[in-house]
Amino acid sequence: MARSQQPLEGKRIAILATDGVEEIEYTQPRITAEQAGAEVYLISLAAGEIQAMNQDINPGNRLAVDRTVDQAQPSDYDALVLPGGTVNPDRLRANSTAMAFVRAFFDQDKPVAAICHGPWSLVETGMVDGRTVTSYPSLRTDINNAGGLWVDREVQVDDGLLTSRRPADLPAFCDKLVEQFAQGHPVGQLNLA
Amino acid sequence: MARSQQPLEGKRIAILATDGVEEIEYTQPRITAEQAGAEVYLISLAAGEIQAMNQDINPGNRLAVDRTVDQAQPSDYDALVLPGGTVNPDRLRANSTAMAFVRAFFDQDKPVAAICHGPWSLVETGMVDGRTVTSYPSLRTDINNAGGLWVDREVQVDDGLLTSRRPADLPAFCDKLVEQFAQGHPVGQLNLA
Repeated sequence: MARSQQPLEGKRIAILATDGVEEIEYTQPRITAEQAGAEVYLISLAAGEIQAMNQDINPGNRLAVDRTVDQAQPSDYDALVLPGGTVNPDRLRANSTAMAFVRAFFDQDKPVAAICHGPWSLVETGMVDGRTVTSYPSLRTDINNAGGLWVDREVQVDDGLLTSRRPADLPAFCDKLVEQFAQGHPVGQLNLA
Repeated sequence: MARSQQPLEGKRIAILATDGVEEIEYTQPRITAEQAGAEVYLISLAAGEIQAMNQDINPGNRLAVDRTVDQAQPSDYDALVLPGGTVNPDRLRANSTAMAFVRAFFDQDKPVAAICHGPWSLVETGMVDGRTVTSYPSLRTDINNAGGLWVDREVQVDDGLLTSRRPADLPAFCDKLVEQFAQGHPVGQLNLA
């Protein structure tokens, strides 16, 4: 019996996050990608579980880590998701192995999607320099100072890099994530108001 | 009967903080300043209480706000303290009234002390440009991109701006805070290894 192929079938997607991740910014992209046929892996700084938060200061569920970043090979994954939660990227950016993992997706020309405070990892790796991106508005100054052009849009795509501002943007972010990750290569800048 | 004057007697000190403040970075400077004779006020974005955190992701005590930032006059205070906690300055920097309050202390040539993630408010206001500062190490890139010179020191003083890295630096931070706030005016750069 024939079965129509799902858009992300055969794709392996890494979500890089640690303690402080905003729970819905992890669960919604994960569920969306899995429902689109992808295998999704939570990559973190240490084995075990990480503490998710709701609205940054209310502890949520603990999430099982699939692989530690020092054992993960970027070449094993087709795309990268960087969720927010203020504390999460602040801890990731202080870890040089995590930042090398992020940089490798750009070096390997693979799509990256970052939401809310997730783009701090892009500031840290220098990957916003010359790119048009959005984020939670509190990062605007850091992004502009890092050579990026910050815009206030629900979804922004620039050369394979997808960014959104906050949990309210998740429906648009997840739709575009499937589209971008299915293409699997940069598609140039696309502005969505 | 004669009474020896305390170093901060007659001084009014503002601590600007909101939800997510690292509890010990609020309580220790407050207690130190009060024991040195100062009156200390918690200024925040809204009236009521703010939620303090321990190590960023564990909710601590709720702290009573003394005055909202839109009602506070910088001219009523002799010095400003900016505690950390990752979420706290991230929320402050998105509030233009709070950022105008911070900037006024520099405009009025009053001493400012910031610890851990507190210096994000100095990045946002442009006040690290040309200054030597320390902070929690995750802010290094943001501070350097904002024109500051980031250094890895327990305590750094540059032209009335006192900075430290983390809770472990609090004893040195609080000692220097009393000294700087007692002088009440910039004293030039002082490097402490």
